[in-house]
Amino acid sequence: MNYRMITYILGWILLFEAGFLLVPSLTALIYGEQAVKSFLLSIAICVVVSALLIFKKPKNTSLRSRDGFVIVSLSWIVLSLFGAIPFMLTGATTSFVDALFETVSGFTTTGASIFNNVDILPRSILMWRSFTHWVGGMGVLVFIMAFLPLSGGRNMYIMRAESPGPSVSKLVPRVRTTALLLYGIYFALTLLEFVILLCGGMSAFDALNTAFATAGTGGFAPHSDSMNGFSPFLQVVVGVFMLLFSLNFSSYFLVLKGRFKDSFTCEIRTFLVIVAAAVTVITLNIRGMFSTVGEALRHAFFTVSSIISTTGFATVDFNLWPQLSRAILVLLMFIGACAGSTGGGIKVSRIIIYFKTAVRELRTAIHPKQVKKITMDGKPVEQTVVRSSLVFLVCFMLVFVCSVLIVSIDNYDLPTNFTAVAATINNIGPGLNAVGPTYNFAFFSPLSKLVLIFDMLAGRLELLPMLLLFAPTTWKKS
Amino acid sequence: MNYRMITYILGWILLFEAGFLLVPSLTALIYGEQAVKSFLLSIAICVVVSALLIFKKPKNTSLRSRDGFVIVSLSWIVLSLFGAIPFMLTGATTSFVDALFETVSGFTTTGASIFNNVDILPRSILMWRSFTHWVGGMGVLVFIMAFLPLSGGRNMYIMRAESPGPSVSKLVPRVRTTALLLYGIYFALTLLEFVILLCGGMSAFDALNTAFATAGTGGFAPHSDSMNGFSPFLQVVVGVFMLLFSLNFSSYFLVLKGRFKDSFTCEIRTFLVIVAAAVTVITLNIRGMFSTVGEALRHAFFTVSSIISTTGFATVDFNLWPQLSRAILVLLMFIGACAGSTGGGIKVSRIIIYFKTAVRELRTAIHPKQVKKITMDGKPVEQTVVRSSLVFLVCFMLVFVCSVLIVSIDNYDLPTNFTAVAATINNIGPGLNAVGPTYNFAFFSPLSKLVLIFDMLAGRLELLPMLLLFAPTTWKKS
Repeated sequence: MNYRMITYILGWILLFEAGFLLVPSLTALIYGEQAVKSFLLSIAICVVVSALLIFKKPKNTSLRSRDGFVIVSLSWIVLSLFGAIPFMLTGATTSFVDALFETVSGFTTTGASIFNNVDILPRSILMWRSFTHWVGGMGVLVFIMAFLPLSGGRNMYIMRAESPGPSVSKLVPRVRTTALLLYGIYFALTLLEFVILLCGGMSAFDALNTAFATAGTGGFAPHSDSMNGFSPFLQVVVGVFMLLFSLNFSSYFLVLKGRFKDSFTCEIRTFLVIVAAAVTVITLNIRGMFSTVGEALRHAFFTVSSIISTTGFATVDFNLWPQLSRAILVLLMFIGACAGSTGGGIKVSRIIIYFKTAVRELRTAIHPKQVKKITMDGKPVEQTVVRSSLVFLVCFMLVFVCSVLIVSIDNYDLPTNFTAVAATINNIGPGLNAVGPTYNFAFFSPLSKLVLIFDMLAGRLELLPMLLLFAPTTWKKS
Repeated sequence: MNYRMITYILGWILLFEAGFLLVPSLTALIYGEQAVKSFLLSIAICVVVSALLIFKKPKNTSLRSRDGFVIVSLSWIVLSLFGAIPFMLTGATTSFVDALFETVSGFTTTGASIFNNVDILPRSILMWRSFTHWVGGMGVLVFIMAFLPLSGGRNMYIMRAESPGPSVSKLVPRVRTTALLLYGIYFALTLLEFVILLCGGMSAFDALNTAFATAGTGGFAPHSDSMNGFSPFLQVVVGVFMLLFSLNFSSYFLVLKGRFKDSFTCEIRTFLVIVAAAVTVITLNIRGMFSTVGEALRHAFFTVSSIISTTGFATVDFNLWPQLSRAILVLLMFIGACAGSTGGGIKVSRIIIYFKTAVRELRTAIHPKQVKKITMDGKPVEQTVVRSSLVFLVCFMLVFVCSVLIVSIDNYDLPTNFTAVAATINNIGPGLNAVGPTYNFAFFSPLSKLVLIFDMLAGRLELLPMLLLFAPTTWKKS
């Protein structure tokens, strides 16, 4: 374990966080909010601590696999701890656990909130919430790697630990260029959504916040009624962009290179089939609750898009929907978005691998001598990817079960506990019953909140980096 | 696919079923019940159909792996279809789906009932319900194989398909002797429980029914209030025997051979630790609901034993317990008993394999070059066992999710649907909310009941045999 190098990188993280905090500071300045002082003080704290950590570059800059994992998990924790400071300094909340919950929920693009009413919060705080989504969506370290001069193979360790999905593909040979390209596409898509929302009649502030929260598939909205107050056109635009940000970003890269056929991967096709099926069934199921089929379709589309993309925006209280629709939504929570997107969940590509593994096992039972490899997009899926996907499911279940047990101590009903954990570990935001879209997470005990904070981070970083923090061997000198 | 051989074996199954039906017939005779005619007619039907199928022995008696699976699943289906006849003929129910549900619930040792009040049923029907548990517990085909002259390796295919757990171990080289030994231990333990219950003051009829239902870890009780009406002593006896029938039967064989140390396997140790932990936490959690700690402890012990053994007896309405206890019980439903026992669920040995696989993956992440094999009881676990255990989890989740979705169409609440599927696929019986221990499964739609019937069979046969029925290649001639 190269501790000196880890603290050095954490120092850089904090310097970047100081930079991120300029965005809400500017917002506070523009709207003449008192909060500007709090944000500037937060920046100062970040800069001072950062300076202490990076004033001397470590001599030994070598990083190993486990260093990469630890850097990723600690970066996200440090980022969240310091990102929570403005919530305290502005007085938005007086509980540090709540402030941390909100910040982690922001960076992990979960969107679960502890605020009853966000309409009374300063605009700079709303902007900070949305902006944490945008930063966290594509990966904080991927962002930093795009700018920080860290050469060599170690970058790949970090990228692998932070990138969602069973396997990570480099778009181009150089990791740094890959990171820059990904952020370029991300930036362009966000800008596009912002412009369309503006044209659709949304205010600049709302449009920017919504674009940030959609891009990161986060779900913090600038209004307490989420997307309910906006026009059907704007709702459909957000619905479409939530899906766009759920697709594998390397497909956009392939589209840019003119390789349209290659870009339409098995994962994207499956994702779209799942969306279409879910929208159809839910529309039929909720038809009676709305005056027209079109309205039912719009709400079904928006909600399915919001849940499977793991964004968590709402146009309607889907908690009141019939049980079949609710069950489908819970299922979509776990499926999640495509690998290599900004969305959470188990990821469609893993679901495909699970399904193909099961089918292969059935085939093997019938024809014991024919053992075929699993393929995806015409290429064989490596055995290590299959195994680690299966192990992911196991780890996921272990974390999930332990979390539900601890949260149950608060004695809320089973669907509340179950979907609270599902909505945080899959980085969605709202769940059902007491954590439904019209409620929030404020009522949980600090212990439950800490568990859900862990789940948000574990979900965003796909378990391994967070779980490794608990393994004694991680911290041993070798 | 050797169809002729399959129907031949199904014929034998029906002949054995006619034999099984002698037990309730005798009960009806003893108690002078009208139902005796219905049972004798059922026997006649079984014998006639059986005669048609076995009057000529097939020339080609060779069976392949997939034949073994198909024989197992079809045997259980045929056994249940014909076993449902007495429920119709005696007028216990007028719905064939209900009669089938009850019979499948019996043979699969689930214990989920469609009867509101079993106290008004004829004693012969109660005996038939309990006896199906006893027959199904150790495996119908294992039983038949112990008597039917089927030589050669094909028996192993059948035994593997019907025996619960990730891998099946032969106690002795010959499959038939193994089957006889297992049934010998099973019979002796059942007899022991029967005698102790008698000595404890239970009536002979109740004691026999309870012993059958405990031995098969089934859960059909001869009274509507399950075990609530019996003395604390009898409750503790049943609680202990539920645990005894949850242990791997090959351990009893090792005990008989004097190999005490070998018999105390990793799986049994883990199982007992889980039971102790669950009893402790639940006792603390429900302490306030009972007048003494001892009473809370007794109910906690009985309920934990009942759920983890997948029996499903109840001494108390655990549906009213606090959420932490309820969540623990739901978790225990999935863990289930030890492999090679009469209990259901995922099985403790698979849980151990999952846990060790996850730990190994974490180790590999830290030290990529050290890849260690998973061991259990000092022996390495074969890679195929690890893989098939992981695939089992995937198939389990797929069946579980699809079942919950279909059952949700009935529009009952999420915990009802979730635990109804959990209680059937894990062969437990009662779940929570509308399927809690004081309720039954009568209210579900026929579609939901058919899904739950499938789940009970899939759970008892550990998925593969039932899933293969849906694979087109199973039915192809090769």
